[in-house]
Amino acid sequence: MLDTPSDATTHFETAAALRLACREGRFAAPTSGQAKGYQQGNVVILPRDLAGEFLRFCVVNPKPAPILGVSEPGDPSLPMLGDGIDIRTDVPRYRVFRDGQPAEQLTNISDLWRDDFVSFVLGCSFSFETALLQARIPVRHIAAGRNVPMYVTDIQTHAAGPFGGPMVVSMRGFSTSDAIRAMVLSAQMPQAHGAPVHFGDPAAIGIRDIHTPEFGDAPILEPGDVPVFWACGVTPQSAIRKARPAIAIMHEPGHMLVTDLPTDA
Amino acid sequence: MLDTPSDATTHFETAAALRLACREGRFAAPTSGQAKGYQQGNVVILPRDLAGEFLRFCVVNPKPAPILGVSEPGDPSLPMLGDGIDIRTDVPRYRVFRDGQPAEQLTNISDLWRDDFVSFVLGCSFSFETALLQARIPVRHIAAGRNVPMYVTDIQTHAAGPFGGPMVVSMRGFSTSDAIRAMVLSAQMPQAHGAPVHFGDPAAIGIRDIHTPEFGDAPILEPGDVPVFWACGVTPQSAIRKARPAIAIMHEPGHMLVTDLPTDA
Repeated sequence: MLDTPSDATTHFETAAALRLACREGRFAAPTSGQAKGYQQGNVVILPRDLAGEFLRFCVVNPKPAPILGVSEPGDPSLPMLGDGIDIRTDVPRYRVFRDGQPAEQLTNISDLWRDDFVSFVLGCSFSFETALLQARIPVRHIAAGRNVPMYVTDIQTHAAGPFGGPMVVSMRGFSTSDAIRAMVLSAQMPQAHGAPVHFGDPAAIGIRDIHTPEFGDAPILEPGDVPVFWACGVTPQSAIRKARPAIAIMHEPGHMLVTDLPTDA
Repeated sequence: MLDTPSDATTHFETAAALRLACREGRFAAPTSGQAKGYQQGNVVILPRDLAGEFLRFCVVNPKPAPILGVSEPGDPSLPMLGDGIDIRTDVPRYRVFRDGQPAEQLTNISDLWRDDFVSFVLGCSFSFETALLQARIPVRHIAAGRNVPMYVTDIQTHAAGPFGGPMVVSMRGFSTSDAIRAMVLSAQMPQAHGAPVHFGDPAAIGIRDIHTPEFGDAPILEPGDVPVFWACGVTPQSAIRKARPAIAIMHEPGHMLVTDLPTDA
């Protein structure tokens, strides 16, 4: 079903150019590092009968699910996020979930589109990590070329209709002074998960072994590092899968919608 | 030399009313809790030949010595901090230091005033602590009616001329989630010492025993509390005493200049 060869070496200066390349089948690669200065977002597409409860889930859980934009039912555009966005074609790769289970992988969902589909775009941590690097705060997993480690916690989200369940967090380790700066910086970016939810003892939020994350790669912690935990966009994805909707469409991990919003907004 | 009875039970609504009471000899008590909503400041008065280097010390050490205002030499007013301030009379209690040693305690320094005196007003932590309480974050020493514990660290300030030496920090203990909120809140208040300089292990900044502070009262730490350390206004006072100027005048601890600046500025 991967009908387009990805081209990870192409670099796009603007979000609009990258979205056009997705639409024309010229780009289907991870979006990290692309179109610097533009906010990227997690994509969730749900039928209208679930969209209201999912919107409420996001509103009451703003740290794991910061809302960047929501569409009208059946309308594939998202004018609040960029001119001419077509959510059916402008994401590099999609994953369809049927009854909560992963199904097709696609680079274009036009054939699946329905008049009752509502699109949600939720903030992700890319713009926060860019801000850390710009502040010369080392981000260990990026320096090592790994994925960020992610953990299921015993912190419960606020449930809304069928959506709920535990919060998933990402972890980054820092020296104490960098941890303070990272906390303060992230608090200024509520659309990128905001301030952390925890630091220090992993067991205090139900993480048994920090070295074996449920998602992503094993963590890198240098001597004296403080682990700092942020709410993660996997949380709403996990909540949707647990709710087992007949159909839901999300982006393939790392293959985000790139919006026209500046990262410093 | 305490020529005025203090009246701790009088409550002043405005900074101007409190300063007038100081000037007229009707108030000589601690200013904590007075004139809510107005920033209070530490007072330092130095001869002109030292003022330039002390100003540089503050500029390069903004966390322990955040500058709220500086006067013209010989001018007892501070128009940037309030209408009609007379620094010779408007502070509840003064302490004169001669050759770095504490000398007279006064409620009025008009008789000592010189044409070469320069006044500095530096931010203090009162407005930050008010913000914590407004955010419903418990502040243990306030709840217990104690002074905040303060410690000499092995963090060196940036020296400027004769002014330098170790940073003094204050410590407040919080649950982890409150610690995150306190760090984020304080970072928004650079005029009240800003973000913390450390949290966690006291030994990492040269504090041997957290239970025996050099200044203030013994700390209150509840089970699971994280100690969080902020730069403290005792740092510039300590730097001045080490520099041993022939004369320096400061406020008596807790007896601050109350300015017309709003705390949310």
